[in-house]
Amino acid sequence: MGTRPLQGVFTPNLVPLDDRGNVDEAELRRYVEWLIDRGVDGLYPNGSTGEFTRFTPQERREIMRIVCDQCRGRVPVLAGAAEANVKETLAACEAYHGFGATAVAIVSPFYYKLSPESVYAYFREIALNSPIDVTLYNIPMFASPIDVPTLRRLAEFPRVVGIKDSSGDVAQMGRMVNAIRPIRPDFTFLTGWDVVLVPMMLVGANGGTNATSGVVPELMRKLFDDARRGLDGDSASLQQAMKLQLRLIELFDTMLFSADFPEGFRTAVDLRGFHFGKGRQPLSEKQRVDRDKLSRALQCILADFGVTDAPAEGCPPRGGVSGEPDKVTQVTEAVMAALRNRGQVR
Amino acid sequence: MGTRPLQGVFTPNLVPLDDRGNVDEAELRRYVEWLIDRGVDGLYPNGSTGEFTRFTPQERREIMRIVCDQCRGRVPVLAGAAEANVKETLAACEAYHGFGATAVAIVSPFYYKLSPESVYAYFREIALNSPIDVTLYNIPMFASPIDVPTLRRLAEFPRVVGIKDSSGDVAQMGRMVNAIRPIRPDFTFLTGWDVVLVPMMLVGANGGTNATSGVVPELMRKLFDDARRGLDGDSASLQQAMKLQLRLIELFDTMLFSADFPEGFRTAVDLRGFHFGKGRQPLSEKQRVDRDKLSRALQCILADFGVTDAPAEGCPPRGGVSGEPDKVTQVTEAVMAALRNRGQVR
Amino acid sequence: MGTRPLQGVFTPNLVPLDDRGNVDEAELRRYVEWLIDRGVDGLYPNGSTGEFTRFTPQERREIMRIVCDQCRGRVPVLAGAAEANVKETLAACEAYHGFGATAVAIVSPFYYKLSPESVYAYFREIALNSPIDVTLYNIPMFASPIDVPTLRRLAEFPRVVGIKDSSGDVAQMGRMVNAIRPIRPDFTFLTGWDVVLVPMMLVGANGGTNATSGVVPELMRKLFDDARRGLDGDSASLQQAMKLQLRLIELFDTMLFSADFPEGFRTAVDLRGFHFGKGRQPLSEKQRVDRDKLSRALQCILADFGVTDAPAEGCPPRGGVSGEPDKVTQVTEAVMAALRNRGQVR
Amino acid sequence: MGTRPLQGVFTPNLVPLDDRGNVDEAELRRYVEWLIDRGVDGLYPNGSTGEFTRFTPQERREIMRIVCDQCRGRVPVLAGAAEANVKETLAACEAYHGFGATAVAIVSPFYYKLSPESVYAYFREIALNSPIDVTLYNIPMFASPIDVPTLRRLAEFPRVVGIKDSSGDVAQMGRMVNAIRPIRPDFTFLTGWDVVLVPMMLVGANGGTNATSGVVPELMRKLFDDARRGLDGDSASLQQAMKLQLRLIELFDTMLFSADFPEGFRTAVDLRGFHFGKGRQPLSEKQRVDRDKLSRALQCILADFGVTDAPAEGCPPRGGVSGEPDKVTQVTEAVMAALRNRGQVR
Repeated sequence: MGTRPLQGVFTPNLVPLDDRGNVDEAELRRYVEWLIDRGVDGLYPNGSTGEFTRFTPQERREIMRIVCDQCRGRVPVLAGAAEANVKETLAACEAYHGFGATAVAIVSPFYYKLSPESVYAYFREIALNSPIDVTLYNIPMFASPIDVPTLRRLAEFPRVVGIKDSSGDVAQMGRMVNAIRPIRPDFTFLTGWDVVLVPMMLVGANGGTNATSGVVPELMRKLFDDARRGLDGDSASLQQAMKLQLRLIELFDTMLFSADFPEGFRTAVDLRGFHFGKGRQPLSEKQRVDRDKLSRALQCILADFGVTDAPAEGCPPRGGVSGEPDKVTQVTEAVMAALRNRGQVR
Repeated sequence: MGTRPLQGVFTPNLVPLDDRGNVDEAELRRYVEWLIDRGVDGLYPNGSTGEFTRFTPQERREIMRIVCDQCRGRVPVLAGAAEANVKETLAACEAYHGFGATAVAIVSPFYYKLSPESVYAYFREIALNSPIDVTLYNIPMFASPIDVPTLRRLAEFPRVVGIKDSSGDVAQMGRMVNAIRPIRPDFTFLTGWDVVLVPMMLVGANGGTNATSGVVPELMRKLFDDARRGLDGDSASLQQAMKLQLRLIELFDTMLFSADFPEGFRTAVDLRGFHFGKGRQPLSEKQRVDRDKLSRALQCILADFGVTDAPAEGCPPRGGVSGEPDKVTQVTEAVMAALRNRGQVR
Repeated sequence: MGTRPLQGVFTPNLVPLDDRGNVDEAELRRYVEWLIDRGVDGLYPNGSTGEFTRFTPQERREIMRIVCDQCRGRVPVLAGAAEANVKETLAACEAYHGFGATAVAIVSPFYYKLSPESVYAYFREIALNSPIDVTLYNIPMFASPIDVPTLRRLAEFPRVVGIKDSSGDVAQMGRMVNAIRPIRPDFTFLTGWDVVLVPMMLVGANGGTNATSGVVPELMRKLFDDARRGLDGDSASLQQAMKLQLRLIELFDTMLFSADFPEGFRTAVDLRGFHFGKGRQPLSEKQRVDRDKLSRALQCILADFGVTDAPAEGCPPRGGVSGEPDKVTQVTEAVMAALRNRGQVR
Repeated sequence: MGTRPLQGVFTPNLVPLDDRGNVDEAELRRYVEWLIDRGVDGLYPNGSTGEFTRFTPQERREIMRIVCDQCRGRVPVLAGAAEANVKETLAACEAYHGFGATAVAIVSPFYYKLSPESVYAYFREIALNSPIDVTLYNIPMFASPIDVPTLRRLAEFPRVVGIKDSSGDVAQMGRMVNAIRPIRPDFTFLTGWDVVLVPMMLVGANGGTNATSGVVPELMRKLFDDARRGLDGDSASLQQAMKLQLRLIELFDTMLFSADFPEGFRTAVDLRGFHFGKGRQPLSEKQRVDRDKLSRALQCILADFGVTDAPAEGCPPRGGVSGEPDKVTQVTEAVMAALRNRGQVR
């Protein structure tokens, strides 16, 4: 894999469950094959998309063992390794190193909202003791933020080789690149905000860990490649990349905001021919009805991209007459309403 | 314990660690004795103060076993039972029921920010299957909020017997009391916001789970008793309660805001003659220096209450000359600055 | 009015508009009479409830002139005097002093989010130059917050005589009382959060500027008087006060959260026999329909309090059968949904 | 100016004040000349940078008259026209139309936090009655947000010709472009977040209203032109644009976050040879000292860009030895600390 393994599109993979709610090993292996076949650059098990907090420590190890074993080194594995405390996290690092993971990704401490000094102290301890390269994982929506000065301090530890940032803030990516590249040209920047992958690459990101790639790996593959060529000077590629980037917003927003994360992505992946089973977070009766509606809406969107058939009952017209709110707008409105409901937009 | 066990002052107890960072069973037992001796109405292990997320599932069970065993039914134990998912949480409920816990307290799902419908679906599953009474735990600062309509729906399950609310919002307590008391006169309301215990009791709360009672149990005991008598008509008691309530703000704020929670409480409890050891969250060098300063400041505050000696080097004058910022103001200013730093005040 | 004029219940009065959208002087005078007749302790024109930002500087002066003239010193007038900048604000202070206002209330700078140091610098300039006593107005929901250390610095200016706080945070009131009372025993603390008036008085507030008193002045009068007597030792009065306090939550929440503030209060005051006209903020067609529904719901609530007749078409049953969601719960659910929509609850 | 006047870099111009705190007409005219000379595409008086809320309605008209008069149609003027209410705003639209403004920009209602329905009703009234084209101004940090569905509804009014968005959210720009371009290909999208101008152009923005262009118009001119050429296929230009974009972050952050907005920009513009005088918001003694320090730091940054001389006392070394925190990092750290203080980063 050479000297810069952590670039391109990594899939923060979902975990299929069987009828009793246990990890479905066969389906997980089939899914890993499918993702590698469709060209993702790496896998990222036990991330937020992978619902790491909803599995036991033993289950997290089991998931990692299966994924690494199935990968057989064909693509790098970025292993989500956050556990209850530094000692347990280091034990997971050790184990995942043994499984053949390329590096670990460790989310900033969550539940408690920690100060930057505490975030530093936590990662420092890990950086000094991990047997495997460490990627920091900043997701301020869910966990204590890793700010730029803290990142700067942590970048002095050779074991810290990159950051995955899910803030979606393009300016913040620029600030990180400004602060770290001069002292660590090898440092990897990955974005977890799929809808701005190309703008993030424009300011210097090396790629992304994008949940969307778990549903449409071929499209994210194309998006990254077109963007890479485009930013290297091929202007037709850049235009294609941006056309696809804009078009993917509808799919991403629908998966992200139409149900509590990551249930929308679980709904979508089943449309690609998998059976991921019921999630660990129970659904109310109303939510089960909503999930069926969401599945039909997603099938229409995916059919438009040519990756699934349209549902038997057909889809509402898209694009529509000028002046009429078309499908895109309708979905966007529903999504924005959902966002407001959750206070995620102001 | 009769028919209304969940009232009065519950201590969300901290967990002492030995030199290797393991649960210090002897010290934990000594601490439980000390708390019961000083009159707390109940214990609440594996809460936020007890840093439940920083222990492994096995450690959480061990802590609960020790506390229940030491209690021997002298006071009710409200057992924090949140685990990775519904199945694991129910297994913990089963185990804690076996240990003799009075009820469990289950924090709303955290990390992911769930919609009210998901919060409902989660607790519904638990309410239908738990072998032990369930108290909901609302802490919107750290976990998905439990709003009033969701509480109203959950109060229809007989297994759900109360709510612990750490929002600190007195009006919200009034809304909950308005919505639930008419249909569930037996329902218990506990506040986790120590500095408004008396106002919360005024609007209908039955008591609190107050981290402050883990440091100054005798003062919280007196506060609750004076408030109870005062609200029952003894106006001198009410005045005493409010005097003490206002005076306790400085102690609470200093413990809560001068270090990342719950390190300030861990610092304070050592001043009462315990050895709680280093916490699970590592401290930077700067933080270790700050902790020493904090310890001296806390000792001065505790000495003023007469529960510790003053430090050998003495304390700055308090109350001070009119027009001069006195100790209270100085501490308050530091605390408010810390609050601003963390965005906890706007 | 003696030495402590700023206590009790002040009405932050709404402004009636005529058919052309201008200030309706006759109706405003009639409203002031009605409020004084029903026993409010003071008036507070040009506050947030009075939509001061939606009037021109000239209109604000005109409103103040009318209110002061109609009051004729029977009750104190706390005059909202915030203008575009310090110079204009001081000119308004001068003018309102001339009209006979008792003191001015000046909201913290808004639009820009200012640091505490800037908030201090702004009020310092006003405190040094105002010809009339100044009350600070803290409403962190809408304007730059006035934190406790900043309040402490500003309390050193004799011209600053009090603070009106609309945060609704009872603990924060305790912090302010702790910081200021020892150095300024005369300082006045008023709460703008009607649903916790009694808890705020318990921790030391002198009263409130409560929009609810513009709709049901007789009830807020009774609430304050019962609370005052109750906190002075009459336990039956305290119980009555808390019963009324809890009951008023439904009315307040419905007025505050069922429409964009202060349209719900404008809707309610019309039910008391006034004609306040269309507000300055236009309503969409949907909002006009919603306002009619809101008016009927409010009429039912007000009829329950005995201050209006029930609507001709009747009201849904209230209290209801145990186990059935009654009216209170239904309204509360709607209100909480609205709150979530606006991100005002988490 | 042809058919698409609202594109490129617009300067939201600051307002110079004389020794008595009044608008300094001569300096304002000199500043307008300087900006046009250095190539800005348009002016935007009475925006947030122009501190419109700190002037009286009369002063706002005076500022607009001076700017339009000085411009003499050489560049378009986008006139900030928000007043206290719809009627007053329409009167300003009328007046600015008369002065020769190209279009008005109207900030969403502020102080009160309005629902999307109210935001719609407000702009609908203006769109139906304005004699001049209207640009919506979304600045969720300070005013009620304009969400995508509301924008979609407002884009049906021909008078509404564009949106200026200061959220800085690149994905949100993509959502707006997706929703509006198909039905209004002529619609203009401007970003107010200077540090992501190029990424915003990549997703479809036509330009920006960038406060930075009021300080370094020549650099923002170059940034836009390089970006335009780069996105049209000239890869060397794109690389140059991104190099400059990243480098400008330090300047922007320092101006934006080192003092309460827009005092940092006022400090910087004086370094370009102007005398903007004391701002309307008073400074405390501490703030005056800080402003002097900020001025020296800004002079060093501007000198690096070659637009000013370095200060006589010299500047700290920049770039520095690898491994050493250099100037960029130091400034970034200070900025991030300031951001945290204000809760602007989590």
